Amino acid sequence: MDFKTTYDGYVRIVEAALGTYFDDTAEIAEPLKSAMGYSLFSGGKRLRPVLALSANALLGGDANEALPVACALEMIHTYSLIHDDLPAMDDDDLRRGRPTNHKVFGEGMAVLAGDGLLSYAFEIMLGNALKYPDNAQGHLLAIRQVASGAGVFGMVGGQCMDLYCQDGGEADGKVLEFIHRNKTGAMIVSSLLSGLYLCSPDETQSGAVRAYGSDVGLAFQITDDILDVVGDAKKLGKHTGSDARAKKLTYPALYGLDAARKKVDELVGSARAHISCFGEKAAFLTELAAVLGRRES
Amino acid sequence: MDFKTTYDGYVRIVEAALGTYFDDTAEIAEPLKSAMGYSLFSGGKRLRPVLALSANALLGGDANEALPVACALEMIHTYSLIHDDLPAMDDDDLRRGRPTNHKVFGEGMAVLAGDGLLSYAFEIMLGNALKYPDNAQGHLLAIRQVASGAGVFGMVGGQCMDLYCQDGGEADGKVLEFIHRNKTGAMIVSSLLSGLYLCSPDETQSGAVRAYGSDVGLAFQITDDILDVVGDAKKLGKHTGSDARAKKLTYPALYGLDAARKKVDELVGSARAHISCFGEKAAFLTELAAVLGRRES
Repeated sequence: MDFKTTYDGYVRIVEAALGTYFDDTAEIAEPLKSAMGYSLFSGGKRLRPVLALSANALLGGDANEALPVACALEMIHTYSLIHDDLPAMDDDDLRRGRPTNHKVFGEGMAVLAGDGLLSYAFEIMLGNALKYPDNAQGHLLAIRQVASGAGVFGMVGGQCMDLYCQDGGEADGKVLEFIHRNKTGAMIVSSLLSGLYLCSPDETQSGAVRAYGSDVGLAFQITDDILDVVGDAKKLGKHTGSDARAKKLTYPALYGLDAARKKVDELVGSARAHISCFGEKAAFLTELAAVLGRRES
Repeated sequence: MDFKTTYDGYVRIVEAALGTYFDDTAEIAEPLKSAMGYSLFSGGKRLRPVLALSANALLGGDANEALPVACALEMIHTYSLIHDDLPAMDDDDLRRGRPTNHKVFGEGMAVLAGDGLLSYAFEIMLGNALKYPDNAQGHLLAIRQVASGAGVFGMVGGQCMDLYCQDGGEADGKVLEFIHRNKTGAMIVSSLLSGLYLCSPDETQSGAVRAYGSDVGLAFQITDDILDVVGDAKKLGKHTGSDARAKKLTYPALYGLDAARKKVDELVGSARAHISCFGEKAAFLTELAAVLGRRES
């Protein structure tokens, strides 16, 4: 397995599939369609779709069956970025090297673009599920997992706490971990599990993937925090130092850069150990954990 | 069948079920939980849940099986009101006689409360579906219908066009009908169909209910427009005249009040005719169409 070839291969099929949901046959009202597409096709890493497809491959799943779920995950991720960037939230004007959605389409349309992407994601997953009546339970489990990772017990819950702290609410290490585990971690776990659930995993398998995702998710968010301190704004495509300016609670701010880096290494090691039970099949996800731990953007 | 007793009975079981999703066992982060609950429990008509439950009853469905779907519809309706009221959208400060969500919890939290309600709605419907493996296809059809009614080809699409027109985009009777059919109508149709789909309807039955919903939905929205001109602000719990102030395209503005009232009567008559095929079972929905046509709030 060549890691880069595999990753790029996943990204290619995801990009192609995402395109079909926004082609000329998709009669979405303008300027909503443009606003949704602007943020969705702005060169993201497509990490969540890759996680779903590679977890699906762990048990030899059918990539075509998992692909709409993978696309939906990217739509949900994009919706969360659009809403997070709003003036009433993080108030960011730059994302992936381009003006943020509300800067281009206005705040009202940016809210709707996010709402639209979230709804469309479910519509796509449910339409796909209807094509596989013999695996209806697998699809229901997968889509429910996505909804719960994205929702009030996951991403939205984490974002709520993040916003609450920015607005002056009390925060400590426990709150920080809650934010990280929920705001980013929950969707990373859900991406993996949604791909896996399509293959009827047993409890040991889903437990292992859940634990892997939990560690990778936390490592990913701590790395995000570190990059906001020491990262290259050009490579990142967004301003750095924004956490410090917003006096945001972060891992490096709370424990220092060195401890933050050490924590990432530990989490990467632990994540890799969790999925060793899948043997050779886990080679890609094992390498992915390491790559995410040393990413620069 | 006593109409009022039946309607109130539906509302009672919906209120009780909605409450369970926000009781002490629901560990939703604060102030998110309060913000979601503030708007959800503010005395709405619960029309969409009633539509789902009464359509489900048309074919003798199990109300317990349909109830989580009914609750999810009310959550989605509430999310749409919270986002519509935002300053960047309709900029309303009064709803159901109380300050709007963002006036109480701030704009950021109001965005999240909407996002949270939408996600929670899907989580609830999917969790419910998993309890009925023998009716997985029925649930998938129902939830997909909700997603599509709420999404870019439905409610969000209609709201986009509404916002676009308010911002000075060109509008005519065709655009107005698009807005009405999508912004309000699509969710009314989807509420009915989602309840019906749980009972494996044949095509004639789903076609009849779809046509009924389409007529009732348009009548409902035209009545809304009429009430914004001639309604009693106290009964409505919101300011009147806001459409005229916002120079909003409405049915009375475009065709006059008399023509608007006549159109409502026609639509109510046609809606009732569509479901006559269900005989006695359709008594409640037949009466409901008439009641909605002459409502004062």
